[in-house]
Amino acid sequence: MIIPPQTPLKSPPKFIVFEGVNGAGKSTLITRITDHLTAQSKPFVSTREPGSTSLGKVIRPIILEAAKNSICPLSEVFLFAADRAQHVERVIKPALAKGEVVLSDRYFYSTIAFQGYGRGLDKKMIVDVNEIAVANVYPDLVVLLDLDPAIGLKRIEDSRISPAATAQFGKDTTTRSPDAFEDENLDVQTQIRNGFLEIAKTRPEPFLVIDATLHPQAIFNQVREVIECA
Amino acid sequence: MIIPPQTPLKSPPKFIVFEGVNGAGKSTLITRITDHLTAQSKPFVSTREPGSTSLGKVIRPIILEAAKNSICPLSEVFLFAADRAQHVERVIKPALAKGEVVLSDRYFYSTIAFQGYGRGLDKKMIVDVNEIAVANVYPDLVVLLDLDPAIGLKRIEDSRISPAATAQFGKDTTTRSPDAFEDENLDVQTQIRNGFLEIAKTRPEPFLVIDATLHPQAIFNQVREVIECA
Repeated sequence: MIIPPQTPLKSPPKFIVFEGVNGAGKSTLITRITDHLTAQSKPFVSTREPGSTSLGKVIRPIILEAAKNSICPLSEVFLFAADRAQHVERVIKPALAKGEVVLSDRYFYSTIAFQGYGRGLDKKMIVDVNEIAVANVYPDLVVLLDLDPAIGLKRIEDSRISPAATAQFGKDTTTRSPDAFEDENLDVQTQIRNGFLEIAKTRPEPFLVIDATLHPQAIFNQVREVIECA
Repeated sequence: MIIPPQTPLKSPPKFIVFEGVNGAGKSTLITRITDHLTAQSKPFVSTREPGSTSLGKVIRPIILEAAKNSICPLSEVFLFAADRAQHVERVIKPALAKGEVVLSDRYFYSTIAFQGYGRGLDKKMIVDVNEIAVANVYPDLVVLLDLDPAIGLKRIEDSRISPAATAQFGKDTTTRSPDAFEDENLDVQTQIRNGFLEIAKTRPEPFLVIDATLHPQAIFNQVREVIECA
């Protein structure tokens, strides 16, 4: 379900997921939101997939080197699911139970987009596996930063060459490492982008789709209006 | 479906899985069968789960220390599935395609028995995940070595104290390390044993259930009669 920008949700979202192609600006946006929540003294957890639990820290490097390790695509789906189930059980559910806002950089929509639309795996199978993994913990809002992947790749490239470029796109981009999908060609990246847009139209969870070429402050303002007017 | 010992299969089994509680004698039996196949110059692959691929070698220690690493039971199911999907894709399917006999020490029946009957996870969910993982590669025969787990644990204990005891139970028992389930109490082990027996009755694949207290040669003879008379 796509909600237009500045349309309030029925209630304030407690679990918010951020999705998009690499370089779309998720980290920058999340940092602005966490700064905002901190200023408001609202308790929150900022987390990401894969790699946010002790198990995830072991799985993440395996996944990031999937191509090098000759991991078959189906095993990759299960590794993401293992990371995700642990993430839900150990991080997301406990935080929500304490009344904290949970901000997650990626969730299972990424697996559908990257492995399903990108690698051509059966999408229904991916959804089936992941609906088991998330154990009925669905986000109240998914923020999809929509971007031409050519721009995303250029942003990443620029941030590697010139750390100064990170001023625009967030403090963690200089430390980002190339993942398996940054090596894919632009056609695949475009399939992934279009996949995210189709997921936003077809999933039952509310999606806020934002043009990620906008200025970071403008992007943040759109998100703030939706989550604060709820 | 339980097939009684010495009931011929319709055709010689190419993919044979060995199941049972720890200490049931799978390794000993598999060694006798591989010696027999070698003497007959029949090409075969002897493999096991988890840990028979490069990915599996990374996953196996994670699973074996699941309790220590506080891995949630659902993540454990997905880790086994990741190992299994890679095992099917990289080892089992290629060997079968070359016309080799495949002998596997454990397959997804172990996950149903240990995680489903042992840990109490939803059995249908485990089957659903694993039917995706095995990608329609089912064994032609499952040999279930049925044993009171108290005897199995005693055999393992004896083999640690006295390497001489391995003469009866196979050459690799002295190097076996305790896994997560060897620490479980006998009640859980008994649930696992009964789980295997129920799986044998309800799965569509042919099961040969053998009393594992018999002498290893008698066990081997039963298997040989079934697989050679086919």
